[in-house]
Amino acid sequence: MDPYPRPLKDLISALRRLPGIGEKTATRLALAILADKGDLSRCLVQALEAVRREIRLCPECFNLTDGDLCAVCADVSRDRSLICVVEEPSDVLSIESSNVYKGLYHVLHGLVSPLSGIGPNDIRLPELMERLKKYQDQVRELIVATNPSVDGEGTFHHICSLVERSGVAVVVSRIASGIPMGGELKYMDQVTIASALTYRRSTQC
Amino acid sequence: MDPYPRPLKDLISALRRLPGIGEKTATRLALAILADKGDLSRCLVQALEAVRREIRLCPECFNLTDGDLCAVCADVSRDRSLICVVEEPSDVLSIESSNVYKGLYHVLHGLVSPLSGIGPNDIRLPELMERLKKYQDQVRELIVATNPSVDGEGTFHHICSLVERSGVAVVVSRIASGIPMGGELKYMDQVTIASALTYRRSTQC
Repeated sequence: MDPYPRPLKDLISALRRLPGIGEKTATRLALAILADKGDLSRCLVQALEAVRREIRLCPECFNLTDGDLCAVCADVSRDRSLICVVEEPSDVLSIESSNVYKGLYHVLHGLVSPLSGIGPNDIRLPELMERLKKYQDQVRELIVATNPSVDGEGTFHHICSLVERSGVAVVVSRIASGIPMGGELKYMDQVTIASALTYRRSTQC
Repeated sequence: MDPYPRPLKDLISALRRLPGIGEKTATRLALAILADKGDLSRCLVQALEAVRREIRLCPECFNLTDGDLCAVCADVSRDRSLICVVEEPSDVLSIESSNVYKGLYHVLHGLVSPLSGIGPNDIRLPELMERLKKYQDQVRELIVATNPSVDGEGTFHHICSLVERSGVAVVVSRIASGIPMGGELKYMDQVTIASALTYRRSTQC
């Protein structure tokens, strides 16, 4: 016999639809929401509704925003000669947290993935090319920061050939791939080590 | 610079209030809710509101319910001579999943815990004693199934003395403590092994 009432079971099912949340975790979360004596449930409802109502995509770079332009595009101090191309909005946060990059972004919302049937027109690649043409006097470099996966590399090569064909004079670069800081050679896979060797830097001692 | 708009940050903060959800998981969940093309967000809001509106405690056993009595108390086929005392509603689910117990429950919603300042009147112990008196012709045994922790054992002894003082003729029993099925002696702590030895069963070969 299942001793949980219907509304609680519905909440558990809804929570299970979140990524990485299984039956046990969903049950634990639902019971914690029920047991909360404060305003947790109301807070969650309000936050969910505000996100659905207010969050949209920046018309320039397709990052998330609740205004007209996103915080990065609206910031006049950013270097408009650089555009960093990323897969997802969370990648913008990762790069911002490094405090090293001061240019603009372009969020593709996916990668070209022939095996999953995702072509270049299914992600924000046409918009990237339009943006390049529109701002070709301004943009100097396109830094492709997709993950070093099969689809990430494929998307990079796709962008290279699109830029070449467009005739826009812009440098296309790729983020470095190698041993992460603090990592150890003995735990790295062959492809990473090969990449770290191939793309070694010459330094002057 | 923080590239996330305010409503998204609010959702991340609300999700972080859930147990076991840190900054990274909350961000991942919030972005998944945003990226969802279906009705995930609406589903969650509806489920949260239904739970807040419809879930209450069963007036008999204080299990969760969306009706008058909970599913267990309302089931006429259950054995009304047994009451299993548990700490939380989730414990009811755990015991039900074993398919071995066919009696009723009493959910304490906490344990007597002198160190945390929780006394017997802060949990549903007075209601248990009232229930025992009201149904003393019916109830034969009280199975205390609180966890075998300091507070769980303390609550068990508290119930024993309350029953004794009340003069109600009911057997108070405690769930067995020992090596879990599939467990190994070498990984067990001393207290568990001591308990398994002390409460050994005699069998007839």
